[in-house]
Amino acid sequence: MSKGAETREAILETASRLARTVGLGGMTIGTLAASAELSKSGLYAHFRSKESLQLSVLEHTRARFVAEVLAPSLSAPRGEPRVRALFENWLSWDGKEGGCLFVAASSELDDQPGPVRDYLVQVQQDWLDSLAEVFRTGVAEGHFRLDADPEQFAFEEDGIMLSHHMSSRLLSDSLSADRACRAFEHLLDRARIH
Amino acid sequence: MSKGAETREAILETASRLARTVGLGGMTIGTLAASAELSKSGLYAHFRSKESLQLSVLEHTRARFVAEVLAPSLSAPRGEPRVRALFENWLSWDGKEGGCLFVAASSELDDQPGPVRDYLVQVQQDWLDSLAEVFRTGVAEGHFRLDADPEQFAFEEDGIMLSHHMSSRLLSDSLSADRACRAFEHLLDRARIH
Repeated sequence: MSKGAETREAILETASRLARTVGLGGMTIGTLAASAELSKSGLYAHFRSKESLQLSVLEHTRARFVAEVLAPSLSAPRGEPRVRALFENWLSWDGKEGGCLFVAASSELDDQPGPVRDYLVQVQQDWLDSLAEVFRTGVAEGHFRLDADPEQFAFEEDGIMLSHHMSSRLLSDSLSADRACRAFEHLLDRARIH
Repeated sequence: MSKGAETREAILETASRLARTVGLGGMTIGTLAASAELSKSGLYAHFRSKESLQLSVLEHTRARFVAEVLAPSLSAPRGEPRVRALFENWLSWDGKEGGCLFVAASSELDDQPGPVRDYLVQVQQDWLDSLAEVFRTGVAEGHFRLDADPEQFAFEEDGIMLSHHMSSRLLSDSLSADRACRAFEHLLDRARIH
């Protein structure tokens, strides 16, 4: 990696942490400059506008999401073990400082048309597709019922994750992860062949 | 209502719509003045600070939430009919312009300590308590199993609502309400005495 690329990565890592705390919209070139200990003009050299900064932060976060949540689940065996691995990887991801940026950014920007919202739509759609796709490996392996609906499973699984995000982050409810796991077991149980 | 109180209510209604679109943090005294067609100094006379404005908007929205979502569900018969009424009232509430402000504000402010976050914690805790409490009427009426866990039910029901909020608002998924209703039927079915 060139020196310029390294600096950019380091800035994006700081920006991603900042955005998880104050929101993507709450992050300004000014607050980021202070956090990253850089001049505003230095930051403008990397990101021409607030929108371009927001998009770069989301792309950076998505690359990390793929590396930390999606990719490792593919080393679990197809079917139920992989479905479980993906769920658990997401719980760990959301447990990090500030929680999942996509959850926060999605409710924040769902009514603000533009390229940032368009990007979030893609991320969320891809995420639901991944949940459904991994579930389908469980149908193919004979772990789940043939008539189970993978998109419905993804919708409900994402709901459990969102409820956990709310209960753990906003309410600091120490029972939240247990509740999420119980809900997930119920969901799996309904899909399983008995 | 006095003229001053009427003006204040009208401003809060405009502010509540604005906050649902741009976020509670994205709403400034300046943008609100433009939307409400008032001077900034006129607004400062009603709300001394941005924080006091945010709190007033949340209190105003909560009063509407009680009137539109909670109160009408109490006219449904105790037990399953009331649980259904509460769920359906929430779906209608979230279907209005900009969606449920509490969902958006909660992810936006979950990492920003202060009185606004404290208020959101109260609202969310009260909401989960209400969901659990209404579920309990169904246990008392003999509609739901005695060993069902009302807090777990509330956690999962809220998850369905959050997933619907995400799918309908961000993804504009026309199937979202159907999916939410199917998920809710599964949840009820698990609680029912068979």
